[in-house]
Amino acid sequence: MIEVGIVGGTGYTGVELLRLLAHHPEVNLNVITSRSEAGMAVSDLFPNLRGHVDLAFTVPDVEKLAACDVVFFATPHTVAMALVPELIARGTRVIDLSADFRLKDAVEWEHWYNMPHTCPELLEQAVYGLPELNREQIKSAQLIAAPGCYPTATQLGFLPLLENNLIDPNHLIADAKSGVSGAGRKASIGALLAESAESMKAYAVAGHRHLPEIRQGLNIVSQQDVNLTFVPHLTPMIRGIHATLYGQLTTDVDLQSLFEQRYANEPFVDVMPAGSHPETRSVRGANVCRIAIHQPQNSNTVVVLSVIDNLVKGASGQAIQNMNIMFGFDEKLSIDTIAAMP
Amino acid sequence: MIEVGIVGGTGYTGVELLRLLAHHPEVNLNVITSRSEAGMAVSDLFPNLRGHVDLAFTVPDVEKLAACDVVFFATPHTVAMALVPELIARGTRVIDLSADFRLKDAVEWEHWYNMPHTCPELLEQAVYGLPELNREQIKSAQLIAAPGCYPTATQLGFLPLLENNLIDPNHLIADAKSGVSGAGRKASIGALLAESAESMKAYAVAGHRHLPEIRQGLNIVSQQDVNLTFVPHLTPMIRGIHATLYGQLTTDVDLQSLFEQRYANEPFVDVMPAGSHPETRSVRGANVCRIAIHQPQNSNTVVVLSVIDNLVKGASGQAIQNMNIMFGFDEKLSIDTIAAMP
Amino acid sequence: MIEVGIVGGTGYTGVELLRLLAHHPEVNLNVITSRSEAGMAVSDLFPNLRGHVDLAFTVPDVEKLAACDVVFFATPHTVAMALVPELIARGTRVIDLSADFRLKDAVEWEHWYNMPHTCPELLEQAVYGLPELNREQIKSAQLIAAPGCYPTATQLGFLPLLENNLIDPNHLIADAKSGVSGAGRKASIGALLAESAESMKAYAVAGHRHLPEIRQGLNIVSQQDVNLTFVPHLTPMIRGIHATLYGQLTTDVDLQSLFEQRYANEPFVDVMPAGSHPETRSVRGANVCRIAIHQPQNSNTVVVLSVIDNLVKGASGQAIQNMNIMFGFDEKLSIDTIAAMP
Amino acid sequence: MIEVGIVGGTGYTGVELLRLLAHHPEVNLNVITSRSEAGMAVSDLFPNLRGHVDLAFTVPDVEKLAACDVVFFATPHTVAMALVPELIARGTRVIDLSADFRLKDAVEWEHWYNMPHTCPELLEQAVYGLPELNREQIKSAQLIAAPGCYPTATQLGFLPLLENNLIDPNHLIADAKSGVSGAGRKASIGALLAESAESMKAYAVAGHRHLPEIRQGLNIVSQQDVNLTFVPHLTPMIRGIHATLYGQLTTDVDLQSLFEQRYANEPFVDVMPAGSHPETRSVRGANVCRIAIHQPQNSNTVVVLSVIDNLVKGASGQAIQNMNIMFGFDEKLSIDTIAAMP
Repeated sequence: MIEVGIVGGTGYTGVELLRLLAHHPEVNLNVITSRSEAGMAVSDLFPNLRGHVDLAFTVPDVEKLAACDVVFFATPHTVAMALVPELIARGTRVIDLSADFRLKDAVEWEHWYNMPHTCPELLEQAVYGLPELNREQIKSAQLIAAPGCYPTATQLGFLPLLENNLIDPNHLIADAKSGVSGAGRKASIGALLAESAESMKAYAVAGHRHLPEIRQGLNIVSQQDVNLTFVPHLTPMIRGIHATLYGQLTTDVDLQSLFEQRYANEPFVDVMPAGSHPETRSVRGANVCRIAIHQPQNSNTVVVLSVIDNLVKGASGQAIQNMNIMFGFDEKLSIDTIAAMP
Repeated sequence: MIEVGIVGGTGYTGVELLRLLAHHPEVNLNVITSRSEAGMAVSDLFPNLRGHVDLAFTVPDVEKLAACDVVFFATPHTVAMALVPELIARGTRVIDLSADFRLKDAVEWEHWYNMPHTCPELLEQAVYGLPELNREQIKSAQLIAAPGCYPTATQLGFLPLLENNLIDPNHLIADAKSGVSGAGRKASIGALLAESAESMKAYAVAGHRHLPEIRQGLNIVSQQDVNLTFVPHLTPMIRGIHATLYGQLTTDVDLQSLFEQRYANEPFVDVMPAGSHPETRSVRGANVCRIAIHQPQNSNTVVVLSVIDNLVKGASGQAIQNMNIMFGFDEKLSIDTIAAMP
Repeated sequence: MIEVGIVGGTGYTGVELLRLLAHHPEVNLNVITSRSEAGMAVSDLFPNLRGHVDLAFTVPDVEKLAACDVVFFATPHTVAMALVPELIARGTRVIDLSADFRLKDAVEWEHWYNMPHTCPELLEQAVYGLPELNREQIKSAQLIAAPGCYPTATQLGFLPLLENNLIDPNHLIADAKSGVSGAGRKASIGALLAESAESMKAYAVAGHRHLPEIRQGLNIVSQQDVNLTFVPHLTPMIRGIHATLYGQLTTDVDLQSLFEQRYANEPFVDVMPAGSHPETRSVRGANVCRIAIHQPQNSNTVVVLSVIDNLVKGASGQAIQNMNIMFGFDEKLSIDTIAAMP
Repeated sequence: MIEVGIVGGTGYTGVELLRLLAHHPEVNLNVITSRSEAGMAVSDLFPNLRGHVDLAFTVPDVEKLAACDVVFFATPHTVAMALVPELIARGTRVIDLSADFRLKDAVEWEHWYNMPHTCPELLEQAVYGLPELNREQIKSAQLIAAPGCYPTATQLGFLPLLENNLIDPNHLIADAKSGVSGAGRKASIGALLAESAESMKAYAVAGHRHLPEIRQGLNIVSQQDVNLTFVPHLTPMIRGIHATLYGQLTTDVDLQSLFEQRYANEPFVDVMPAGSHPETRSVRGANVCRIAIHQPQNSNTVVVLSVIDNLVKGASGQAIQNMNIMFGFDEKLSIDTIAAMP
């Protein structure tokens, strides 16, 4: 049994952590913080948790957090940067769901986030929490940078191709479609149902903050600089990411077998049979990435379809997967749930 | 560990039974039948079950079904009527999610379903599977008629009022809103997204098949014939029922306390604090009925808001709740899940 | 050709006025104001208007507004109150889409809006702009209080019954379902797609600001104080109101004929054939109220189904209908559009 | 005033023709056929048309159709093939919204539609009804093959680039997202709201029937065989197509100016300002294609965003645009409507 703290529990990744941890047999939810909602019962804000979570939000208190075995940060960027160094210094393990420790290069971080990084010395130490890539380092990590949602779906789809040098790294395209929960639980006109239902649009085509994160990951497995065009789209649904990935094959191999072997031992990556079209609803609420591989019209363009729930395998579920690995629990504990269909 | 069979697993209540039973620690899923899909792997039809359910659909075989400890019928009406008598005769327990055994009066059944009932002798024996009303009889029942979705939400909202003779039984109104999954997994133009999204409409105002079922239940607790106007509405969402119930108070009592006491020991009925407005999403995928009671403008009209997930507390979850009671398991086993929000 | 001004063009009723007025053959759109967006081209904010409206938003200027033949207020409450007296004094006609002049009783207004009314002397003069009730007064009105959305759907459904004393005025129930655009174009967490899609809930059951407006209207036609229970619901769609109205019949008449005769000459009320179930999508974008009348199970409860588009017949379309009447144009000019289905 | 007939008026392109033609000042709707619904009033099937269209469906009658000036076919493929030769022989002009005459090569048609083409001799004569490409031929055409929805959005986005040889024709990618109305008004499980809402998926990645149509069009303007990867996606909305197009630039030009000049005189193509992200809702119900051009990160990958309403500029609106051109009417007559936002 470990003691768990959550900083910033009022957003969508926070409530999702609570949903998935509430019945975790090895976890005692010890503290959940929110400056704005301090004093309020968690289940008053999130009525789905009535009867399952008895905690109330509290103001962040370093002493209480440091006393936990692990602390999750489910906060906007810059919050973790401010608190994590002290927790790390005191031996508390940290899983940060925000972007603060995802990029290895502080200069690039500062370029994309338009502010100084206040603890660049931790960037090297932070382990990028994609278990399919870094399971060994995760086991002993003290600080995990949990991957973003787009980066998870995109990297898992490109990995087998780039690890084996099967596609031209100069012509990668990721056309990604996300549900609106990716924008977070904050008041905004653009994410109103009246504005975003019954419509589809691309956004941030000039440059989205997940681009450098994806590029960094692909560069590492390619062992060279890739050229990636990344176009995110706002899709009229709550949850789900559908990444449609395009690459130019440079050689001829059995892609289906390749993907199946690459992920044969991965509990949360499901390579579907040849010819499949994964649906985001098949992973809604579940910690799974479903992938299908196509080579339409026998051209040399490979099309990989990769779907996740942005709040689960793309955020809170993957964060708990990291926790399970860090503490030696069964990796599937409490996150082996089944999507509800319909 | 009990052996479980499911007849008719290709509809929405079937896949929902599978989702909730797949990880039930006391259940071995033994057989699932479908004439139309015999031979197909269940997870080919429902990809959310990939990695969780290994069964394939088979043609119904009475021998195999009779060898189970309990058989669920997740079928359109008339299918259960044909098979249940033999299963009952051979000692197999049955939980029927269809309408075949819900009405006690065969003549009324035949009026609403426009066909003869082929085993009216079982109507008396069948126990109406609303645990909040009939938990004791359920324990020893051999045949359960699981309640319909509208009847569950409506009866749980009216029960405390009618049991205590607090409202005029001659002026009951149930204005109910249902997601489109209530229409089942069958091809129809009216339930297309292009037809039913972005629109609201009432239907079957002249008389819906759930009306006699609700009326029968309310008559029993009222010990008299009630006059109920029931107007169902098709709502542009997948899951959920929101029943808005209106009654004319005949006496002045603390309704909040009354409801809280009535359901104090019910694991799956949640009476919310005074002034609440339950949302259907707070019970999506969960086996819960959330209720709030209002008396607007201090008039003598009481308004009860009652929400469920039509496929869970309104169908498959409640069916499993019955099974847990029948076999002496913890009533919450495998159905104590938390709705995902957002 | 008349000169038209719009105050507050950045909300949903504002853009809807522009859509419907852009091609009005008798209207010259002269000025549209917005303090927050002054200087911005209207079509930059609302790209649907590209190529149709060339105006830019300007800071409100009384001189320019007073020079118009008619000024629409598409503003939150209290804005019209502050400007209208001067416009009226200078002879400009005003159509106010906000709540400022809808209630005749300043004390009641102040109760529901929690602030003083700054020009109560205009309340008497203001004509309530429901053409089906007040067409004659509208013709010569200088100040129109355009009805709210719920009040339009509810009053048009109850009018024929109350005008003829056919139902008990002490037991009126209006169960109304509205799309989320009714909440306006403003940032709020509750109206996010991630919060309000795939869910249904009642709100403001204790008392909604449209209640006194509806009650006032029904009192006038009933010539007595009615007792109305009004329960609004937030529905997961953008546009549309479905009002389901319940009354207790006190006499036996041919309701279908009654409604058909009442609205025979109304261009924008469509009484559907007996047994119909109007859908909100059939009036989406159109200035129509579709009504069906039911008497289920031959009980004495009458059920009226009344649907409108909250932004058209429930707001901007009706406001233009008033303008057409006031200036002697064909009442249907520019608002006789057809809903798109699907 | 011309006499107009419609064959097959019960689908989505049929009702959309009716909506747009009902108030066309030069059109008399003479006959609308449907074998399945013969005798039914059109407005009974489509209540949005109540008060606007008085016709009833009739069984197809060649005499009556031939007496029209122009006949629209809003039918599944193969229906037009059977009737068109006789109408053409008798001098009636025909606008076919189906796929029967879109491909010039009968062998390719037969490959994609798995059946013989019964009047290949008309393929040469048929004019492909994309006004932005073939306006002159349309003027005098007797038979128009109206473009498909995906082909319209894709071709309008690629045209300026391919006409000027600015991109490598061997690496074209069209990632297209369509609302579910593209599947037509027919009962199917996959298009149920319960199956397709809250989910995103690709489909027909191996080869969609619109691929050869798009390829044919791009080949013509490129004057060579292009290599196009086309991946359509089913999007949880009713209407709209968002085509995201990717090309590899072979030269450096001012793309924004290029597109603006190419479409400067086109009434229904709107090139948005640099940096824009067109939304499908901005063209919902309107006969417009909105386009934005991006060159993210200054790489040599150009990204074109092209949105249309699949039922208007992608079908019925464009068909009427063709009719206006054919008969010398103002090209914008009756189709210059404004999308409703929200």
